[in-house]
Amino acid sequence: MAFASVIEDFQPRNNSYLLSKAEREKPVLKSTMVIPKKIISEKESYGKDDVLCYDFGNHFVGYVTMHISTKGSHPDAPAFLKLCFAEHEQELKENSADYRGWISKGWIQEEWIHIDTFPAVVKLPRRYAFRYMQIEVLDTSQKYKVVFDKIECEYVNAVGDQKIEPVQQEDELLCKIDKVSIRTLQNCMQDVFEDGPKRDRRLWIGDLRLQALTNYKTFKNYQLVKRCLYLFAGSTFPDGRVSANIFTDGSVEADDTYFYDYALFFVPILADYYRETKDQKVLQDLYDTAKEQIRFGMERVDQNGIVRDTREDENAYWCFLDWNMDLNKQTGAQGVLIFCLKRMIELAEAKKDQTGAAYYTQELERLTDASKKRLFDEKQGVFVSGAEKQISTMSQAWMILAGVFDIEMNRKILKKIKEMGLPYEMLSPYAMHNYCEALIVCGETAEATALIKNYWGGMILEGADTFWEMYNPKNPDESPYGGKIINSHCHAWSCTPSYLFREYDFTKEAEKK
Amino acid sequence: MAFASVIEDFQPRNNSYLLSKAEREKPVLKSTMVIPKKIISEKESYGKDDVLCYDFGNHFVGYVTMHISTKGSHPDAPAFLKLCFAEHEQELKENSADYRGWISKGWIQEEWIHIDTFPAVVKLPRRYAFRYMQIEVLDTSQKYKVVFDKIECEYVNAVGDQKIEPVQQEDELLCKIDKVSIRTLQNCMQDVFEDGPKRDRRLWIGDLRLQALTNYKTFKNYQLVKRCLYLFAGSTFPDGRVSANIFTDGSVEADDTYFYDYALFFVPILADYYRETKDQKVLQDLYDTAKEQIRFGMERVDQNGIVRDTREDENAYWCFLDWNMDLNKQTGAQGVLIFCLKRMIELAEAKKDQTGAAYYTQELERLTDASKKRLFDEKQGVFVSGAEKQISTMSQAWMILAGVFDIEMNRKILKKIKEMGLPYEMLSPYAMHNYCEALIVCGETAEATALIKNYWGGMILEGADTFWEMYNPKNPDESPYGGKIINSHCHAWSCTPSYLFREYDFTKEAEKK
Repeated sequence: MAFASVIEDFQPRNNSYLLSKAEREKPVLKSTMVIPKKIISEKESYGKDDVLCYDFGNHFVGYVTMHISTKGSHPDAPAFLKLCFAEHEQELKENSADYRGWISKGWIQEEWIHIDTFPAVVKLPRRYAFRYMQIEVLDTSQKYKVVFDKIECEYVNAVGDQKIEPVQQEDELLCKIDKVSIRTLQNCMQDVFEDGPKRDRRLWIGDLRLQALTNYKTFKNYQLVKRCLYLFAGSTFPDGRVSANIFTDGSVEADDTYFYDYALFFVPILADYYRETKDQKVLQDLYDTAKEQIRFGMERVDQNGIVRDTREDENAYWCFLDWNMDLNKQTGAQGVLIFCLKRMIELAEAKKDQTGAAYYTQELERLTDASKKRLFDEKQGVFVSGAEKQISTMSQAWMILAGVFDIEMNRKILKKIKEMGLPYEMLSPYAMHNYCEALIVCGETAEATALIKNYWGGMILEGADTFWEMYNPKNPDESPYGGKIINSHCHAWSCTPSYLFREYDFTKEAEKK
Repeated sequence: MAFASVIEDFQPRNNSYLLSKAEREKPVLKSTMVIPKKIISEKESYGKDDVLCYDFGNHFVGYVTMHISTKGSHPDAPAFLKLCFAEHEQELKENSADYRGWISKGWIQEEWIHIDTFPAVVKLPRRYAFRYMQIEVLDTSQKYKVVFDKIECEYVNAVGDQKIEPVQQEDELLCKIDKVSIRTLQNCMQDVFEDGPKRDRRLWIGDLRLQALTNYKTFKNYQLVKRCLYLFAGSTFPDGRVSANIFTDGSVEADDTYFYDYALFFVPILADYYRETKDQKVLQDLYDTAKEQIRFGMERVDQNGIVRDTREDENAYWCFLDWNMDLNKQTGAQGVLIFCLKRMIELAEAKKDQTGAAYYTQELERLTDASKKRLFDEKQGVFVSGAEKQISTMSQAWMILAGVFDIEMNRKILKKIKEMGLPYEMLSPYAMHNYCEALIVCGETAEATALIKNYWGGMILEGADTFWEMYNPKNPDESPYGGKIINSHCHAWSCTPSYLFREYDFTKEAEKK
């Protein structure tokens, strides 16, 4: 996720015990050597202004080595090459010099290199996420041209060649969606769960929740989830709030970014992990961090049992939910808090914290009742949000995932919001996932299938080898950042179809319809 | 020198005995750490589109290390920097993307670098020749800026901090010229005598002759001259001709470029070296190579004792003399051959090769007589060249350096050519040196002083810390290559004032006048 919060003189609170445990779980990455599947515009040798492009045939993350020799006379000048690495072919059509968006140009995967002596083995020191590698020969000299003898990539991730049983499904597109979801997850599994291996290459907690869930259904790499939980607990805001993301380059450092919903997600991530592993030690180490996040979450609840609208003090308590900046977040935040309270009760029970469990249960009831009473518009049959009483798809989705009403009522809400044309468009696969899961928990599996085929399937039709950070079916080349060249085309929060398919025995449901 | 000859399937003839001796003389470079003298546009930290420039206060050749930290939040994106290294400030005003000349853009000293983690110690792997180092911050991010804590350069050359006694001279400009000449030579003394440390970083024999002469008067590094002599003898054209230059990156390889005059210069370089060192072993090893060059030189002499005009078969037997492409080279080539025959006689006598000495002496007389008879125009009082009977300054200069006539006659010739306005303009410091030495050997030291002050002094007025490859006093920013950005501003063949001052006790002569 790209987000730029700045808190002056921010100093994270680091807990060396928790961070040392995180360090202990750091994986040794597995690597495989891969070579391009084909070369576009192949020639024997390349001189000034020649351009060639290697297609590796799939999305890879890793380190590239080029073996380059020459043809002609002895090279009398350095070769000067521009390299571009692209996850999606479209990126190659844009020029980084023209990029004017607010995200750092530093993320564009391009290098200008000089080669002074030949034959050369050029081992590029930086990691790239790509399928296409384009080489533009800016110059050799009149006396020689370059020959690319071998280009190879050391493909790295925490998973290696572990094979995942494909989802049982006859529909070819769904099978393909499953495969691409798994590749998306795999390529984001580095020494932490990254949000995107091209950009921003960082551990974000909103992505982590979905990655962990999909991982439990596929790679079952518990160690990496454990590491990430310890990282979030090990470096927090000075007051103990969990940061939206953690830097792990060099020393571990929490980012100075707090999202209301993201911090709360520490609770379900820990609860999901505990449900999978029954790891008492992790529960013991991290229970207090979970409790603290609920405490901070509850601080925002007013006397009526409603989360105060974040619009009042947006910078300090922003709730994410989706990239749609017109979205009012109050009801969504309330939904997330109730969703997390339920997982907190699970944790309290596992921890045999009776007092805690009783308190959380009482608060859960208070917030649930308040939601029904104050946020649900009986007349319109949907939840509303904020002073403006905004009706949005996301508000309904989170209230459904929170289970404020029963299934029958939730189905009615879904029907209503659909009739309203799903107001406040969902702009990210992240929001789309939550809506999709809301459909499934209400038994609307056919609807969810159609949505997945249309949305995730749409990316495949657009040439996706891994799923994207952002996708607008009406404008596949759209970038919220001012250029597709900077978009992340392998982004963790898009990997959830493989989770949904397996968690809900979804495909059989779909067949029934 | 920039020159692009291409011979298809050229395979140099390498002599492993001679090359192993060259290898044995490879110097261990001496290094000193240097830091910038001042920063232009200094700030505490630098963000997107900021530009700063370090002025190292003098010309250096070496390896740069940058110590970079950040200010603001934890860096959330790579920093993207463009670096430009410039010998002359003017280079920074040109954009490499606009360069359209025939020389490889690969020589332009610029890098685009990404820095992924901070604090960073970025040790740039390539060597640069520069006084100015400009950093353009292409991007950081909204969350942080970069801080340049320390920039340093490991200054390298074969000489180190060896101090040279300045020339005895009251004239400030001449003292400054001497100092700049010595720095030019020093910075070109790497593991071979390079023509220019920015471009083309290569051992050229025309430069070597002048570098060796200046070195004998200053650093007295005999080992490096010896190494270069063995390199030229160790890798030649398949027929034994000495190449105009040698590649020493990786394996040693003669370039597929033969210049008539340059190959002959092997003889005076060996003779000068022997005169300085009396090194019998070197004479024994390299005498045959010298003989061969005279043999090839004599092959071009017709029955009348005149070198055939190279225009007939320009590609195979081009004679350099100067960059002026309108210059007819016949008479200049004849002058160079006679000049070299005289040094060959010295070598033959040292080698006690009586037969050889007798043959060379006889040929010397034949060529000298022929020159007087067939190339000298009695009526006009100057030498003429080629079928078109071209009158040029270079033809006179080489006939004077060859000593075809006596001093009195030579003085008359110089007077004549000066009256004619020095036709066929000298375009390189290389040609200027030869004309200057011709003046001095005729006792025209005042004239030479004026020329040195005007020409080399002119470069100093233009901000030279080292002398340039090319300089046109009428247009100091002129580039024969389509951009000052690609010009070499530290070029060996410009270092000769320090030689002339000392060889001819020149300064005292100048004072007398």
